[in-house]
Amino acid sequence: MTYRIAVLPGDGIGAEIVPQAIRVLEAIGAKYGISFTFTEGLIGGIAIDKTGHPLPQETLDLCRNSDAILLGAIGGPKWDNLPTHLRPEVGALLPLRKELGLYANVRPCRTYEALADASTLKKEVLSGTDMVIIRELTGGLYFGAKGREDVEGGQKAWDTMVYSTPEIERIARLAFEAAGKRNKQLCSVDKANVLESSRLWRETVNRLAAEYPDITVTHMYVDNAAMQLVRRPSQFDVVVTENTFGDILSDQASMLSASLGMLASASIGGEVALYEPAHGSAPDIAGQKKANPIATILSVAMMLEYSFNRVAEARDIEAAVEKVLAKGFRTGDIMEAGKTLVNTEEMTNRVLEEL
Amino acid sequence: MTYRIAVLPGDGIGAEIVPQAIRVLEAIGAKYGISFTFTEGLIGGIAIDKTGHPLPQETLDLCRNSDAILLGAIGGPKWDNLPTHLRPEVGALLPLRKELGLYANVRPCRTYEALADASTLKKEVLSGTDMVIIRELTGGLYFGAKGREDVEGGQKAWDTMVYSTPEIERIARLAFEAAGKRNKQLCSVDKANVLESSRLWRETVNRLAAEYPDITVTHMYVDNAAMQLVRRPSQFDVVVTENTFGDILSDQASMLSASLGMLASASIGGEVALYEPAHGSAPDIAGQKKANPIATILSVAMMLEYSFNRVAEARDIEAAVEKVLAKGFRTGDIMEAGKTLVNTEEMTNRVLEEL
Ligand SMILES: CC(C)[C@H](C(=O)O)[C@@H](O)C(=O)O
Ligand SMILES: CC(C)[C@H](C(=O)O)[C@@H](O)C(=O)O
Repeated sequence: MTYRIAVLPGDGIGAEIVPQAIRVLEAIGAKYGISFTFTEGLIGGIAIDKTGHPLPQETLDLCRNSDAILLGAIGGPKWDNLPTHLRPEVGALLPLRKELGLYANVRPCRTYEALADASTLKKEVLSGTDMVIIRELTGGLYFGAKGREDVEGGQKAWDTMVYSTPEIERIARLAFEAAGKRNKQLCSVDKANVLESSRLWRETVNRLAAEYPDITVTHMYVDNAAMQLVRRPSQFDVVVTENTFGDILSDQASMLSASLGMLASASIGGEVALYEPAHGSAPDIAGQKKANPIATILSVAMMLEYSFNRVAEARDIEAAVEKVLAKGFRTGDIMEAGKTLVNTEEMTNRVLEEL
Repeated sequence: MTYRIAVLPGDGIGAEIVPQAIRVLEAIGAKYGISFTFTEGLIGGIAIDKTGHPLPQETLDLCRNSDAILLGAIGGPKWDNLPTHLRPEVGALLPLRKELGLYANVRPCRTYEALADASTLKKEVLSGTDMVIIRELTGGLYFGAKGREDVEGGQKAWDTMVYSTPEIERIARLAFEAAGKRNKQLCSVDKANVLESSRLWRETVNRLAAEYPDITVTHMYVDNAAMQLVRRPSQFDVVVTENTFGDILSDQASMLSASLGMLASASIGGEVALYEPAHGSAPDIAGQKKANPIATILSVAMMLEYSFNRVAEARDIEAAVEKVLAKGFRTGDIMEAGKTLVNTEEMTNRVLEEL
C-alpha cells in the first residue's frame, strides 16, 4: 500500500517542522509496512515570491492528486502589506479549503500531565480537559455575500452569515460521529437567541439528534461557551460550531494546552484531507532550529487515523510523544526548570526512539 | 440637584440586588448633597407575567423620562420556552438598546488584589489586569437584515454583519476618549483579513487615529484576541469591537475576575444611559439573600461617573468596595477559607460603613 502525500512546507518554521513529521511517517511506514511518496508544492509567501500567487494552480492540482496533504505554516511580515486577497494566509487557505471541499476543521485540545504547569490556567482547572472542537470551514460569515456601497456619511460594508440545511447536516453528522467514538457528549455552540442562521443550525442539530440516541446533545450560546472554556474546560467532549465562532473558540481553547506548539489539526470532508499544526509560521524563531515539531508530528498521527484509518499507528505516535514528554525533553516553548532542552531535530529523534 | 432614576429590578436576584445599590446611591446623596428620585418599572419575565410583554411601553416611557436607568437582571426558566422575540432577555434587552440609542456597552474588567486567588487563571497571569471592553451595541450581526427561505434540501437562513462609517465613527470616538482618560492604549478588534465590514471598521479607526495623536492604536484579529485574553490579559487597556465579537470577548473576559458578581456595566450613547451588573438573574440562588450586590453597586458608581460626571463620588464607592474586600467580607460566590461570609444586605452594610 502506497499513500501519496502532498507536502506543503510553506513559510517560516514550516520548512523546519514538516521534514520532522515526514521522518516520523517514514518510521511508522517501516514499522507497519506502509509506504509513502512525498511530493512538495509551493504555498503562501514562498509561492508568492516564486510564482506571484499564494496558491498556484500546480499546488492545487498536486493536492487533488494526493491521498493526504501535510501543510506547515503560512505567512510572515514580508508579505503583510499585500492586498488581502493576495496575502499568504487568506489568499491560500480560504480558496484551498473551498476548492477541496474541506468543510470541517477538527482541532483536538487536551492537556498533558507532564506539561500541566505550563498553561496560564490553574492545573486543577485543566485537569481532565480533553475535547475536540469541530469548526464548520467552508460556510458562514467567511463565505457569505459581502460588499460595500456609498451611503450618507461614508460607506456601508457587510458580510453575511448564511447556512443551508444540507451544510449544517453534514457538519453535524460528522460531529455526532466523532462524539460516538469518544465520550458521547456533543455541545453545539450558536447564538440562537439572536441569529436566524443559528436557529436553523439548532433546529437541524436537534432533528438529527433523533438518529443518534446514544449521544447527549447540549446547546450553548457562543458568549457562554467562551466563558465556560475558561471556567471549566473539562466539561466539553465534542464541540461543533459555525466558521467564525469556531475560529474564535478554537484559538481560545489552544491556550488550555501548554503551547500552540503541541496542537494538531485536520481539515476534512472532501476527497483529500489536510493536516497542519495549529500554530503559525513563527518568523521570530524561523531558521533557528528551535521550533517544536510535536504539533506537526501529531498532525500526521491524525492523518493516519482520519485519512488512512490506521488507528493503531496514530495511537503509537501519540504514545511516543507522551513518553518523550514524561522523560523530560522539551523544546523552548514548553521548557521548564529541571527539564532537558532539545532542538527541533533532537525532539524528533526522541520520538523516533520511542516508536 | 435631583436626578431621576428609572429602577428596573427585573427577575430572580434582580429584586434583591437593586435595592442594595439604591441604598448606596442614597448614602452618596446624603454625603455629597445630591438627591435622587427612584421610579420602578417592569421588565423581563415579571413584565410578561403582569402585562404580557417583556418590555411594556410604560417602561420605555419611564426610561425616556429619566436621567439614568438602573437594571437588575432578566430571565429565568419559567419563560425559557416562549418564542424568542417574546423571551425576557431578547424581547426586552435588544429593543431597549435600540430604542434608547445605547450604541456602546462599556464593561470594565479588573482583578482585585484581595480576590486574586479566586479566578481559574493563575495569579501571576492576572496581575495588573485592568481593562475596559467597549462593545458596539446597536449594529453589526445582531441588527442587520436576517431571514430564511426554502432551498433544495431544506432551508437557508442568514444574518448580516453590517456597519456604516458613521456607526463606526461614533463608537470609535467613544473608545478613543475612554483611552485618553486611561493608559492611552486602544486595541481595535476585528477580522479584517476576512470580513469586509471589518475592513471598513479598521480603515475608519485608522482615519480617526490622526485626531488622537496621544493614543496608541493597535489592531488585533478576534481569534487572536480571544487567545490573548487568556495568555496575557494585562496587555489590554481599552478594547473596542463589533457587537457579536464584543458579546463573546466581554463574557470571556469576565472570567479574569473572581466572579461575575463583581462586574459592572454601562450601556451608553443615547440621551439616557443604562447601568446593570454583568451577571444574570441567577434563579438558582434567588430569594436566598446570597447574591453578591457588588456588581450592581459598582454599576451605580459608573452611573455617577458617566451620566452625572460625579467622578469623586464614583471613586468613593469603588474605594469602599475595595476596603470591604480587604477586610475579608465575602458573599458566597467569592468566599474563601478564613474569610467572613456575609449575605446580600450585610455586604451592602459594610460598604455603607466605609462611605
Ligand atoms: C488566516 C485566517 C484566514 C484563518 C481563519 O480565520 O480561518 C486562520 O485564523 C485559521 O484559523 O486558520
Ligand atoms: C441576552 C442576549 C441577547 C444578550 C446579548 O447577546 O447581547 C446578552 O448575552 C448580553 O450580552 O447582554
